[in-house]
Amino acid sequence: MNKLNLGLIGYGNVGTGLVQLLKERRSFIRQRFNIELVLKTICDRSIHKKKVAAARSTQLTTDVNGVLRDHAIDVVVELIGGLNPTKEIAFGAIRNNKHLVTANKELIAEHGKELFKEAIKRNRNVYFEASVGAGIPIINAITDGVAGNKFNGLYGIINGTCNFILSEMTKTHCSFAHALKEAQKRGYAESNPTKDINGMDSVHKLAILTFLTTGKFVKPNDIFVEGITNIDHLDIEFADTRGLIVKLLAIAKKVNNEIEIRVHPTMIPRKHPLASVNGIFNAIFLNTDPVGDILLYGQGAGQMTAASGVMSDLINLAVRPKESAAARIENLSREFSGIKLRKMDQVETKFYIRFMAVDRPGVLAAISGVLGKYGISISSLNQKIRHRSSAVPIYMLTHPANEKMVRLALEKIAKLQVVKGYPVAIRMENLS
Amino acid sequence: MNKLNLGLIGYGNVGTGLVQLLKERRSFIRQRFNIELVLKTICDRSIHKKKVAAARSTQLTTDVNGVLRDHAIDVVVELIGGLNPTKEIAFGAIRNNKHLVTANKELIAEHGKELFKEAIKRNRNVYFEASVGAGIPIINAITDGVAGNKFNGLYGIINGTCNFILSEMTKTHCSFAHALKEAQKRGYAESNPTKDINGMDSVHKLAILTFLTTGKFVKPNDIFVEGITNIDHLDIEFADTRGLIVKLLAIAKKVNNEIEIRVHPTMIPRKHPLASVNGIFNAIFLNTDPVGDILLYGQGAGQMTAASGVMSDLINLAVRPKESAAARIENLSREFSGIKLRKMDQVETKFYIRFMAVDRPGVLAAISGVLGKYGISISSLNQKIRHRSSAVPIYMLTHPANEKMVRLALEKIAKLQVVKGYPVAIRMENLS
Repeated sequence: MNKLNLGLIGYGNVGTGLVQLLKERRSFIRQRFNIELVLKTICDRSIHKKKVAAARSTQLTTDVNGVLRDHAIDVVVELIGGLNPTKEIAFGAIRNNKHLVTANKELIAEHGKELFKEAIKRNRNVYFEASVGAGIPIINAITDGVAGNKFNGLYGIINGTCNFILSEMTKTHCSFAHALKEAQKRGYAESNPTKDINGMDSVHKLAILTFLTTGKFVKPNDIFVEGITNIDHLDIEFADTRGLIVKLLAIAKKVNNEIEIRVHPTMIPRKHPLASVNGIFNAIFLNTDPVGDILLYGQGAGQMTAASGVMSDLINLAVRPKESAAARIENLSREFSGIKLRKMDQVETKFYIRFMAVDRPGVLAAISGVLGKYGISISSLNQKIRHRSSAVPIYMLTHPANEKMVRLALEKIAKLQVVKGYPVAIRMENLS
Repeated sequence: MNKLNLGLIGYGNVGTGLVQLLKERRSFIRQRFNIELVLKTICDRSIHKKKVAAARSTQLTTDVNGVLRDHAIDVVVELIGGLNPTKEIAFGAIRNNKHLVTANKELIAEHGKELFKEAIKRNRNVYFEASVGAGIPIINAITDGVAGNKFNGLYGIINGTCNFILSEMTKTHCSFAHALKEAQKRGYAESNPTKDINGMDSVHKLAILTFLTTGKFVKPNDIFVEGITNIDHLDIEFADTRGLIVKLLAIAKKVNNEIEIRVHPTMIPRKHPLASVNGIFNAIFLNTDPVGDILLYGQGAGQMTAASGVMSDLINLAVRPKESAAARIENLSREFSGIKLRKMDQVETKFYIRFMAVDRPGVLAAISGVLGKYGISISSLNQKIRHRSSAVPIYMLTHPANEKMVRLALEKIAKLQVVKGYPVAIRMENLS
């Protein structure tokens, strides 16, 4: 029976869940996998103020370095999150010849490449299933499940908070602010939800999925991102009339030997499997060759589902004691030469655009004149019937248009006196 | 670089796809995984009549035993299908100290248990990802992806032919016969589609998923099965009025320490993710603890998607040359004691039942009288308005009712003079 001694660093929400799970599943895991996962130490800066439900033999400490230097520990499980002090901890674990299991998307997205190099050098393993989609086995599916496939496109709903808000707005036609409040009330959004609703959480996850599927390491800062704060229920209702739905998508796709990587609200057809992913659920849709379209769906957040991802990592580590860690990490982090990142300015998509304009003759001519000047061609146009005297929405759908041209045109149009506020533009994806 | 010599037995549809894929992906696989998959031999009884697109170094033969005895071959890839002569081939491969990769659901469902025992004895591996859902990585997801989870329920749409037919009937309100013809025209159903439409194909796949998720080996013959041939467009249209949809589901679920295993047409809520799985697509929905609900979706059949599953198996085998095959097979085939199979007669579900009856006073009283006698309680009843003079449909939904009682009641009712033909009963699942 293979035995792994674990040093858990970070006894917060997911850490607590993991400890509970390891305790409850101890005999199940022994029976099913013939392995033993022994929680040797729990380290947390306020561990002594916390109620810990671990076995008596588990040591409690606030001393991170003690854990990293403990020769009896085989695996460091990092569940603090963020970059500081986790970067030091992660590298420290590897340099002290320990395997690393983490749920930390930021760490892997920002420092994965160097971390993998260090791990290969020392033949240590790094597992990070819970960093994307929590317990949904998306990383395993990509690295093992459809091994040998090429990835043409990846479209992910990978932030439960945003998906809940957009689903709520779609279902009840409420405002963004109201949907956000509802998410907070139900515990689906933090009191400071910035990183979720501005898309950065999705960016980190997308960076990870991108190197796994394309072999290209992209810094999170180089990924185009647009959050969901500008989406109005008007946009969602209009989408509905066209059989479309608005989702925050994380996209990585090949276009003519380049890859486009971006996170933004996206209108997709209601018939597409991603369209029925509602509430806090996540889903990742992969277009692969030769297996075709694949979708993985599940709860992408939550204490126990994240703990489940970590547990799977620990089991997979323990059941293959003789596997070459270096070979595994080399395989999952091997870069392909010659893959270029397409600059966002060169990306082309169809757009939905909503202008709020004074209802006066000549307004449409002014707007479409600017669009025409920038080579943006309109495929459909709707204007709401006359309201009192305030601004009315004008809805447009465009043919495929260049990002930069759209941006410049909207800047121009926003300055027109007859246009109120900044136009709302939502990219469309022709998912079929 | 780890190198595996392959002996492919069976150069039919999937075999041809695999050979093509191995050739086309050779340098990609080398670069990505640092392994080499060398196709040493292709064996097929009519190999000399076929056009083979393999490398020149690949030997072509009709001699199965030669392949099994060839010391230079590390892995036998069995892509014949069915039980004869594949059973001999599979055991022969293992006994000659070769690993086995197969897409053969029947083989694994019927003889998996003994095959695994033999493989453990000789520390050889058996991989069979393509046996369920072709290239959808469902087996890998269960064994590795959500390792350590307990499985409470599994609901699969795992036969593309049936799903295409039911989707077509739902979409166009056509008859079963018409939908089947359409499936055959498009190449989604064989000219003899019996094993697909009678549910046996799903039964074999369910047997495999059942031992992987519950540790219980169940003989295909012990799995209750009902095909889709009795489904009429009347049933599908009625379901639609209640927000329900008819799917052929393969079900394995825990109920009070027993497991229910069955394949039959099932009415499920239109809002459930499985309901939007249309056409030839497959999906497997798992209720697991603690990761919660997970769905995997993709093309569950087809030459290249099946070949993809086989290729993934070969890669996973090759990248872990030092993994203990015996340990892996032990883990995935370990039986749990004390799990009982619930007899179908004891299963309880809600039912949809359609009777075709003469439109005459007293008919309803006669039917509901029999149902009442067998303890079956009706939750809703609909009768179509009077047609000419022919039989009219009477639709009923029941509260949870016992299988055996329903069967007995329907037998009685079918004998009533006012009832025409055998009633159609479709089980319902309260998927949420």
